[in-house]
Amino acid sequence: MKAQDLGIKIGVFECGKRNKISDVKGVKVGHVTLIRGKGKLIPGKGPVRTGVTVILPHEGNIYKEKVLGGAFVMNGYSKPVGLVQLWELGTIETPIVLTNTLSIGTAVDGLLDYVLSENEDIGVTTGSVNPLVLECNDSYLNDIRGRHVKREHVVEAIKNAKEDFEEGAVGSGTGMSAFEFKGGIGSSSRIVKIEGRSYTIGALVMTNFGKREDLTIAGVPVGLELKHWPGRGGDGKGSIIMIIATDAPLTSRQLNRLAKRAVVGLARTGGYAYNGSGDIAVAFSTANKIKHYEKDIMEIKALPDSLLSPLFKAAAEAVEEAIINSLLEAKTMDGRDNHIRYALPQDEVVRILKKYGRIEE
Amino acid sequence: MKAQDLGIKIGVFECGKRNKISDVKGVKVGHVTLIRGKGKLIPGKGPVRTGVTVILPHEGNIYKEKVLGGAFVMNGYSKPVGLVQLWELGTIETPIVLTNTLSIGTAVDGLLDYVLSENEDIGVTTGSVNPLVLECNDSYLNDIRGRHVKREHVVEAIKNAKEDFEEGAVGSGTGMSAFEFKGGIGSSSRIVKIEGRSYTIGALVMTNFGKREDLTIAGVPVGLELKHWPGRGGDGKGSIIMIIATDAPLTSRQLNRLAKRAVVGLARTGGYAYNGSGDIAVAFSTANKIKHYEKDIMEIKALPDSLLSPLFKAAAEAVEEAIINSLLEAKTMDGRDNHIRYALPQDEVVRILKKYGRIEE
Amino acid sequence: MKAQDLGIKIGVFECGKRNKISDVKGVKVGHVTLIRGKGKLIPGKGPVRTGVTVILPHEGNIYKEKVLGGAFVMNGYSKPVGLVQLWELGTIETPIVLTNTLSIGTAVDGLLDYVLSENEDIGVTTGSVNPLVLECNDSYLNDIRGRHVKREHVVEAIKNAKEDFEEGAVGSGTGMSAFEFKGGIGSSSRIVKIEGRSYTIGALVMTNFGKREDLTIAGVPVGLELKHWPGRGGDGKGSIIMIIATDAPLTSRQLNRLAKRAVVGLARTGGYAYNGSGDIAVAFSTANKIKHYEKDIMEIKALPDSLLSPLFKAAAEAVEEAIINSLLEAKTMDGRDNHIRYALPQDEVVRILKKYGRIEE
Amino acid sequence: MKAQDLGIKIGVFECGKRNKISDVKGVKVGHVTLIRGKGKLIPGKGPVRTGVTVILPHEGNIYKEKVLGGAFVMNGYSKPVGLVQLWELGTIETPIVLTNTLSIGTAVDGLLDYVLSENEDIGVTTGSVNPLVLECNDSYLNDIRGRHVKREHVVEAIKNAKEDFEEGAVGSGTGMSAFEFKGGIGSSSRIVKIEGRSYTIGALVMTNFGKREDLTIAGVPVGLELKHWPGRGGDGKGSIIMIIATDAPLTSRQLNRLAKRAVVGLARTGGYAYNGSGDIAVAFSTANKIKHYEKDIMEIKALPDSLLSPLFKAAAEAVEEAIINSLLEAKTMDGRDNHIRYALPQDEVVRILKKYGRIEE
Repeated sequence: MKAQDLGIKIGVFECGKRNKISDVKGVKVGHVTLIRGKGKLIPGKGPVRTGVTVILPHEGNIYKEKVLGGAFVMNGYSKPVGLVQLWELGTIETPIVLTNTLSIGTAVDGLLDYVLSENEDIGVTTGSVNPLVLECNDSYLNDIRGRHVKREHVVEAIKNAKEDFEEGAVGSGTGMSAFEFKGGIGSSSRIVKIEGRSYTIGALVMTNFGKREDLTIAGVPVGLELKHWPGRGGDGKGSIIMIIATDAPLTSRQLNRLAKRAVVGLARTGGYAYNGSGDIAVAFSTANKIKHYEKDIMEIKALPDSLLSPLFKAAAEAVEEAIINSLLEAKTMDGRDNHIRYALPQDEVVRILKKYGRIEE
Repeated sequence: MKAQDLGIKIGVFECGKRNKISDVKGVKVGHVTLIRGKGKLIPGKGPVRTGVTVILPHEGNIYKEKVLGGAFVMNGYSKPVGLVQLWELGTIETPIVLTNTLSIGTAVDGLLDYVLSENEDIGVTTGSVNPLVLECNDSYLNDIRGRHVKREHVVEAIKNAKEDFEEGAVGSGTGMSAFEFKGGIGSSSRIVKIEGRSYTIGALVMTNFGKREDLTIAGVPVGLELKHWPGRGGDGKGSIIMIIATDAPLTSRQLNRLAKRAVVGLARTGGYAYNGSGDIAVAFSTANKIKHYEKDIMEIKALPDSLLSPLFKAAAEAVEEAIINSLLEAKTMDGRDNHIRYALPQDEVVRILKKYGRIEE
Repeated sequence: MKAQDLGIKIGVFECGKRNKISDVKGVKVGHVTLIRGKGKLIPGKGPVRTGVTVILPHEGNIYKEKVLGGAFVMNGYSKPVGLVQLWELGTIETPIVLTNTLSIGTAVDGLLDYVLSENEDIGVTTGSVNPLVLECNDSYLNDIRGRHVKREHVVEAIKNAKEDFEEGAVGSGTGMSAFEFKGGIGSSSRIVKIEGRSYTIGALVMTNFGKREDLTIAGVPVGLELKHWPGRGGDGKGSIIMIIATDAPLTSRQLNRLAKRAVVGLARTGGYAYNGSGDIAVAFSTANKIKHYEKDIMEIKALPDSLLSPLFKAAAEAVEEAIINSLLEAKTMDGRDNHIRYALPQDEVVRILKKYGRIEE
Repeated sequence: MKAQDLGIKIGVFECGKRNKISDVKGVKVGHVTLIRGKGKLIPGKGPVRTGVTVILPHEGNIYKEKVLGGAFVMNGYSKPVGLVQLWELGTIETPIVLTNTLSIGTAVDGLLDYVLSENEDIGVTTGSVNPLVLECNDSYLNDIRGRHVKREHVVEAIKNAKEDFEEGAVGSGTGMSAFEFKGGIGSSSRIVKIEGRSYTIGALVMTNFGKREDLTIAGVPVGLELKHWPGRGGDGKGSIIMIIATDAPLTSRQLNRLAKRAVVGLARTGGYAYNGSGDIAVAFSTANKIKHYEKDIMEIKALPDSLLSPLFKAAAEAVEEAIINSLLEAKTMDGRDNHIRYALPQDEVVRILKKYGRIEE
């Protein structure tokens, strides 16, 4: 169930066909979901509530045909791998992997397993590769110290990638919490028309942030209204990873700009980028492919900056809705030490949005 | 008339006494407002709708006793003076001056007039000084090419500084537009309790951004509801300057973090940081004074980062309300070529917020 | 007299025809030199030892046809105007103006006089303009508090611009000091061949940094050898502005990278980026012109990053030689309070470089 | 053999007792060196020429008592882990681990093994931990695709840490190349006096960069003189990691500044930060300890910025000498596919430095 299925309208732009990041042609998403055990935390044993999610920027060999990318760190209480080279060279050359904080090492290794097997030249006749891995801390539900994600899970998630992927408490979102409800993976998309051309912009988020009272949906203080809904708890340490894809032709500088607008969507849902939150946005465009062995002068297609405002607004909208979708799609999940994250109660959300005039009676 | 006077509640923290940035002890604000002429634009002649606003971080000699500061650029279509040194040294050593885009040169000169007269050592026996000047483009109403701000206006604005300053279409806000209504200067403050200690955080904004349909007040799409209210126009090129002051002890790194949270408040009012907008936040703390001629090891008081989340949230709230206050305090103003910016109609705002359940009937 | 005229070889690349930044086709440089008075400093009166230097990126209307640019701040004890927008949009849209620290306000105003007169649309039917002004502190010789640079000097310097410009104690370099010798304006260029294509890279510096003992020429500790040469003094507070031009097709991201390499050249002359030094590099490419009113998708020509290393090395070399040239071209200059900066003694330099085997006997 | 043992003097400051980073009290360094196999590269099998080096900022629990830190990326063709959080929070909370590019995932995992075992609260009752891992690409000699570094090697390297550690082709430096000679680990230190107080500054580098002809020792073009010395080869893709430690009281902002000065030392040895090089500096100070569970207002000791110049210069000197020491301490090493990196020939170096007057006959 997505926001629109409940009659909640976020923003003004039209959605893409699936209302997912995969509305950007070529983009696919794959999950591996790990759920095992129950009850008391035995560090290293479980319970396990975690996973891996990967975003493929296109269907070919991403190392050999890189996409232009950018990133923005709203709050850097976070352990991303790959941003320094992304900022320097402006390219993404691997699938983007999301997982839990203590599994970034394993995720890098699994991603390398995949990329090295696809590219026999790396480390032999050409240079190295820049793995792109992002994380949130799912320790409220998950035995995060157990590092239950294994290298093969990353490869498997890549193989699982498809356009019509699941959202909610799946993949790397399995153990995540948002606003003291069950968070996880959410996605949305928008269509933007610029000078007669039509572009798609899609967002995928992994939500794991926020205090209950901060939750805001379509401007309505849903969190305050649900303050006494059961399931509160956790120290509010969290994070959010926001991935933006587009087919609009943008340079890496422009994609850094676009990534920044993710924060606008985040703020509208009640995100404050609290101290303990790692709030990171990555944006990429599929419009230019950068060849690994390029020796010629390139011609990089790019929209003039003066035309970017609609894309900025659409990116903010897509992220805002993706966050709400991550909540609406997620089912209740229990975890370690009888911690439980309830699904955001959809009836209550509808009731509250009606009360505040944002859904028609 | 401020948001609270209309019964609009923004956020959860308590306000300071005046609900202004000057609730932070020692902070003062001064304006010079320039309004002359009417009718058709004669570049260089008028009409004049512009001015200068200054923020004094404390009452002493700011060059000799600097305050720690930070800054964040959400969108850099902007011509700030002084940020590079602020980032490098982490200090603010002059009053902060706001004016129109084409008057930054003159404003620097006026600010130097003041600082040099107060400090005979500058450029003779000690180094130079880093003037801090920020701007928005008021050309929708003002003959900005005329550069009607003069050096003496800056000095005069500094002399005018007081705790109980005016808001709205005054000072540097005189010619500014926001959401195709009359914008200008707005301010607000919040009180935060951390580990038993109480801190004040204040915001002052100069608003000059946004399309009509984007205006959001307390989560309510006021702009969409007022889409057909008269006075639309302008290319939406704008900007916002956001100044945050606090008496909480923070390092310059922490103040960079705090400045970033201004964007959360901005986003909630409908700000998207459009391409043509210069969206800049500056934050300072009055808790440590850095002596110009210091030769001893300093002991910089600072809250642990783990305690900063309430300050982050309060900063976002204060900026959000300050933006709304800049609209509510501003009176209708005409300008060049019969351009007119209407005051945000307060009755309509109240009516719409009631409709959406945000003001009690 | 340039380094090469003395038989000093810096680096391995070939020089351009003039060994100046103007070897990059279309680039011109203009000066206004202000020298008045003698003897005791009377703040506001003199003596005057200052000026303005401008670099024109091409011969057309720079606002209407912008060049791509980048910048790097090695040490931000500096008051640049225009870098924030340069980083955001990646373009330079005015001549680059160099002057003294306390004259940046006036220089902005003078630059606006020029740009506004050339572009009647600014501030009326289009947005504003981002003036690019950089500075060093010439107060060791100059009555910097007198702010003797006037707006018309900027316009005049632009009008004076030519390919075959003077170096040394001219223009904005008039009052500058380097390594406690006379510094000022220096320039150099290099030719780089990449995949069969030939590119020119040129540097222009304004030198005002360094302690005597740090001066290094072609790796030789000239400063230590000349430690007791007369004319020492000053607190070593200084700065250096480094401008790099090229006709190689580079994006703004790549130009940010190129600007960083200026620091390599700086370091080799004995630059340490001391606390009080504002060490800033700006780079631009003339290969792409960005039209102000562009509405079409652009095709930005760019070399693959994998081919940039020779450009990086050549940029470092050109900056290194430009710094040395600024010293060798500058004549002895007295200034306020009987301060005197001696020309670097060329015979001594030759003698020392011979002693260290860097000039053949 | 270090530079000073050959009579090569780099810079003007006095060295510490060991001329190593461990002259900063409490700092220790540990290695694990992996050398196995010979001859033709069989990816995944060998030959193995790699390892792990760790730097411990102090002898206690670094997670519970963090040190202030900063970092600078001169060229980001690099895969560092941990910098984003270091910039945000200004603290280092784990040992610093150096290894090869494709082993960063495993190194993160090994570092987590260690830190988690020392801190049972992580991921259970407190947040996560920010592992700090830096790398260079040793694939010229090493079967880098084999990822021969195992998690336990990291733990072992930490256990091996001592003050009197080895330099050269050891630890993570085992397979590294510099200037087409054998590179690896090098270290140096300097003593700085500021206002009557004495501070130590130490550097440790992992060198893996540079073309033969670029090598410069004490300003002398040793690389050009040794251009025809055997053993050239490799594509010049490389990197350098530079770690700076000090007991001077500095804030994280000041440590970012200090880290930048590493580049000055790098440039003087012939570093150009070529496109394919990941040139990263990390700096930390042992003077303030930041407690993980701090709830009180802290008093952070810091030198005034106006006193930092000698530290900046000393950092540059220490890095410059550390780079040269990494070459002089490294012994000839063969590797995959009969690649061989010869030790920099010390007799030749002495001969050349005498020729250029930098070592007395």
